[in-house]
Amino acid sequence: MMIKITLPDGSVKEFAQGATPMDVALSISEGLARNVISASFNGTTIETSTPLTTDGSLTLYTWNDDEGKKAFWHSTSHVMAQAIEEKYPNAKLTLGPAIANGFYYDVDFGDEKFTDADFKAIEDRVLEISKEKHDFRMRSVTKAEALDIYKDNEYKTELISNLEDGTITFCDHSNFFDLCRGGHIPNTGIIKAMKILSVAGAYWRGDEKNKQLTRVYGISFPKQKDLTEYLHLLEEAKKRDHRKLGKELELFHFSQKVGQGLPLWLPKGAALRDRLEQFLKKAQKKAGYEQVVTPHIGQKELYVTSGHYAKYGADSFQPIHTPAEGEEFLLKPMNCPHHCEIYNAKPWSYKDLPKRYAEFGTVYRYEQSGELHGLTRVRGFTQDDAHIFCTPDQLDAEFKNVIDLVLYVFGSLGFENFTAQVSVRDLDNPDKYIGSVENWEKAENAIISAAKDKGLNYVIESGEAAFYGPKLDFMVKDALGRSWQLGTIQIDYNLPERFDLTYKGSDNELHRPVMIHRAPFGSMERFVAILLEHTAGNFPIWLMPEQAIILSLSEKYENYAQKVLNLLENHEIRAQIDNRNETIGKKIREAEVQKFPFMLIVGEEEEKNGTISVRRHGDAGKSNQSMTIEEFAQLIQVEIDKTLKQF
Amino acid sequence: MMIKITLPDGSVKEFAQGATPMDVALSISEGLARNVISASFNGTTIETSTPLTTDGSLTLYTWNDDEGKKAFWHSTSHVMAQAIEEKYPNAKLTLGPAIANGFYYDVDFGDEKFTDADFKAIEDRVLEISKEKHDFRMRSVTKAEALDIYKDNEYKTELISNLEDGTITFCDHSNFFDLCRGGHIPNTGIIKAMKILSVAGAYWRGDEKNKQLTRVYGISFPKQKDLTEYLHLLEEAKKRDHRKLGKELELFHFSQKVGQGLPLWLPKGAALRDRLEQFLKKAQKKAGYEQVVTPHIGQKELYVTSGHYAKYGADSFQPIHTPAEGEEFLLKPMNCPHHCEIYNAKPWSYKDLPKRYAEFGTVYRYEQSGELHGLTRVRGFTQDDAHIFCTPDQLDAEFKNVIDLVLYVFGSLGFENFTAQVSVRDLDNPDKYIGSVENWEKAENAIISAAKDKGLNYVIESGEAAFYGPKLDFMVKDALGRSWQLGTIQIDYNLPERFDLTYKGSDNELHRPVMIHRAPFGSMERFVAILLEHTAGNFPIWLMPEQAIILSLSEKYENYAQKVLNLLENHEIRAQIDNRNETIGKKIREAEVQKFPFMLIVGEEEEKNGTISVRRHGDAGKSNQSMTIEEFAQLIQVEIDKTLKQF
Repeated sequence: MMIKITLPDGSVKEFAQGATPMDVALSISEGLARNVISASFNGTTIETSTPLTTDGSLTLYTWNDDEGKKAFWHSTSHVMAQAIEEKYPNAKLTLGPAIANGFYYDVDFGDEKFTDADFKAIEDRVLEISKEKHDFRMRSVTKAEALDIYKDNEYKTELISNLEDGTITFCDHSNFFDLCRGGHIPNTGIIKAMKILSVAGAYWRGDEKNKQLTRVYGISFPKQKDLTEYLHLLEEAKKRDHRKLGKELELFHFSQKVGQGLPLWLPKGAALRDRLEQFLKKAQKKAGYEQVVTPHIGQKELYVTSGHYAKYGADSFQPIHTPAEGEEFLLKPMNCPHHCEIYNAKPWSYKDLPKRYAEFGTVYRYEQSGELHGLTRVRGFTQDDAHIFCTPDQLDAEFKNVIDLVLYVFGSLGFENFTAQVSVRDLDNPDKYIGSVENWEKAENAIISAAKDKGLNYVIESGEAAFYGPKLDFMVKDALGRSWQLGTIQIDYNLPERFDLTYKGSDNELHRPVMIHRAPFGSMERFVAILLEHTAGNFPIWLMPEQAIILSLSEKYENYAQKVLNLLENHEIRAQIDNRNETIGKKIREAEVQKFPFMLIVGEEEEKNGTISVRRHGDAGKSNQSMTIEEFAQLIQVEIDKTLKQF
Repeated sequence: MMIKITLPDGSVKEFAQGATPMDVALSISEGLARNVISASFNGTTIETSTPLTTDGSLTLYTWNDDEGKKAFWHSTSHVMAQAIEEKYPNAKLTLGPAIANGFYYDVDFGDEKFTDADFKAIEDRVLEISKEKHDFRMRSVTKAEALDIYKDNEYKTELISNLEDGTITFCDHSNFFDLCRGGHIPNTGIIKAMKILSVAGAYWRGDEKNKQLTRVYGISFPKQKDLTEYLHLLEEAKKRDHRKLGKELELFHFSQKVGQGLPLWLPKGAALRDRLEQFLKKAQKKAGYEQVVTPHIGQKELYVTSGHYAKYGADSFQPIHTPAEGEEFLLKPMNCPHHCEIYNAKPWSYKDLPKRYAEFGTVYRYEQSGELHGLTRVRGFTQDDAHIFCTPDQLDAEFKNVIDLVLYVFGSLGFENFTAQVSVRDLDNPDKYIGSVENWEKAENAIISAAKDKGLNYVIESGEAAFYGPKLDFMVKDALGRSWQLGTIQIDYNLPERFDLTYKGSDNELHRPVMIHRAPFGSMERFVAILLEHTAGNFPIWLMPEQAIILSLSEKYENYAQKVLNLLENHEIRAQIDNRNETIGKKIREAEVQKFPFMLIVGEEEEKNGTISVRRHGDAGKSNQSMTIEEFAQLIQVEIDKTLKQF
């Protein structure tokens, strides 16, 4: 009997029943067959060796697909588990999934310890097993058999007990077997490089009442070169960790007394933030936005009206009670309800629209302490928020203007590499969303049309929309190739209904405006973190809190250094003086650590000629350039103009 | 027998025992005797007719003293009570004190109503009684007598019951008497003008469980001219009410949904605020301040450490609980604890000090809804806060620098008329204050020395210091002669102890820094309110959100209007266009209401010549001046330079 297999490009091919994904790959090209390492059939992950028995849609994955990597890493975790079991016969295996970068296996080592010193032996054995090119083979077992096999392993026993009979499968390779749902590469031979990255404690099933296991993190690659690169990136990422740089550059600080996830912005960090805010404010002013200021709390009723309370109330910071009068306030988790009330402060005509209210609004959202991470996951953050209230006719143009603004922000900050994601409804779960189907369709079409028009490289993701409207997100790649979601633009037909927002149309009747939420940075906290990791602290020069440091050769030149500083200030160049009684070598080294783009050395020669001796950050070995302040001001302006264009 | 009377200038005079304050006044000059209306002896208010029986300090008061006005108004409340009692024999009198501006009497009118229509008859009768020149005379009565006299008045009965026998006094004048502690003018004859201002409901003893009485507000003066002026000022104040102007100028808005006392700053108000903030930031930068940014909440522990929780916790917004982890946060009522934690982020040497951390920090403090008033009494407000951490040696210089900054702010905003108040400890209540006596003395001396040095017109007020340190407040008179407290500067030896702040001295030992709290504006909300009432919305031109409006004679000149706007922007002049299809007369009228300092009219003539026709706000009747944009830019710069100097 023949079955019909539909491929991702829409083509349909016929195969004998029982043909495997590998057979399908072979029928396309030998090259593909060499590279295919995993597959999915009608949306379910299968092996490349799984016989296909019905008509259906087949996708083949290689290392270049996320699904391919997942199978690769998950399969490696089997091999690592085998190596661990051989070396630690009393160790009990539990679960070993693939993660975003690599995989882990949670192991109960019993009385034994597994530490850094033990990594090498396991890595070596994994590569030995890999070289033996063992096939991964799935087999079904009954629940009774499975329980019998794992009678000495309470973890696997617990897992099996929760499974239905008939769904229980094992995966074999070499002489190793493991309880497993599937999703493996064809055989161990393609694992050419593997590294154990770290170990950490992890409670069984994430519950701190359970026993603590040892989580062994690893990663593997089809080429040794890939591993070398990855480890280099890892090293680089560690150096660029924004928490480390934030401390070194004295940008921000967390105080246990103030509270976790509540950053204190130190002077240099606050200046950086302010510069970013002023930059965006200037562009927004040109784009017709108006700044507003709203409080950080609002009555509970405000969020009942907006729908946020019903949706998030229980998981948020709890209401603030007053000592009398029985009032209840909430820390604002979003600025939109406040901006709706500003819109409602007076009646509007269609001639007044669009109204574009912008605010660097600080919002507070509860996150569990375990979820907090530097500036990327905090409990209080400042959104570069704005809400556009427009007529339905103005929606397309406004959406396009917002995209222009977002692209301007990316360009000025050196993010060259990005894609867009249009998040639309999950059509199978219409109850998840507030608002009419008609309005959702209008909104989704407006976004897709704008994305096309602006020539964005975009994908459409079903089910990723917020409950109150569809949106466009930008996925930006940083200098280390990591993706960050930035610059969300969201259409909202819901809040205008809930807040009864209106304008008088040319027909003299009242109509509902449409709302756009947008935040090019997202939040100042997260954006600064990403920018730190992207630039390693070497910000575009227009953004640097201090663009230059004046280093005096000795305290004798204090007056001249001060004169240079005043001249720089006249040119709106931000600088400071290091006039300490230290060697020039030490001053330069410290200025390098602090990432000053320019070091301006002043001594006898310079004072006599009215010049400065200019050294660039990172220019070790090059000789300094002597120039006048005016020449330096021109030099720095050229640097600024490279990234900061006019909006 | 002779007694020794010490006068405020330190001179001591001898009088026969039984001499009255009026006798003392006569011994000085007849003019003084004509004007003296009240007195205090050893700190206790007495009548000018009270016989002096011991040695002691005597102060004589005239209408020009607050104490004199108090006696004048309190006495008038007796006369008004007499007039009311005559016309409403069933009315029950309760209490009738002097207040900041005038006096009131709380009356139980029983079944009768007392309304605006009844004011005139009472006013006329008060003036009649006054003309009869009745002396005010105090007499002592026993408790039993007093209770008998007031046996039909449950209010007076309650008051008398709470008094000790022997302290009960009545005041007589004409055929009227009243339970009274004293403090009257010599006789009714000097009350030349009196007006009932309003009536309001007031619960007996301020307790809403008690009966509601009628509070009759009045004011009186020694000259008719004074009353006329006062009523004019009252009218003017009504026009300048910042709540009215805030609405007209679209500066701010209160939303019932967001909550009472939580202003929403509309675009024009937010721009005004921003301009004030940028103005102060610029001056502060020159003065060596560094901006920081801190969250609007902090763990309860932070305020336990600072002492604020013990002092204010119960009367404040209550703690914010988290859905898990049992944490407790508070809305920050002050920025200082956060700034202490910023100071504590790294170790300091004496060479690094002073550190001056500034933040436009929004704080939240609970106020009962009845206490809220426009922007002057709110529940959330933004302080122009800064904290200076310095060595004790630097304290004097830092304090003087802060005074310079405050005076710069006043000068730039047109507040010419101010005095200073140094608030020191109440030496009789040492337990009210945190910190050592030695440190309090040091701090108080530093403030007084700075006030002297800067030539301030200052008074020292005992017992007015905050619990954590002494302070200097400025009392600023606005254009209507009303006093506002602005520009607090406070020394604090307490928080450095509580937060264990240290620096390494030149002796290599750890020392405590001293802290100065200061806020030239106080809060942005209150300051904008005062500025609105002071200027009636005609801000100094540098501060105006929009300095000019371009009024086109018709829609035909839209392009030229836009060109003018662009040229103005090149000169950094803030302007907008009114290009509506309305008459120029209507456009001018609306621009006048909106207080645009300049109206720039453009039509055919102007477009042809590349000029604008300039009209100033309030210049009705004057002819417009034709000029180029460059000439206008010069004109506006001259106006700006009149108020805004360089710091």
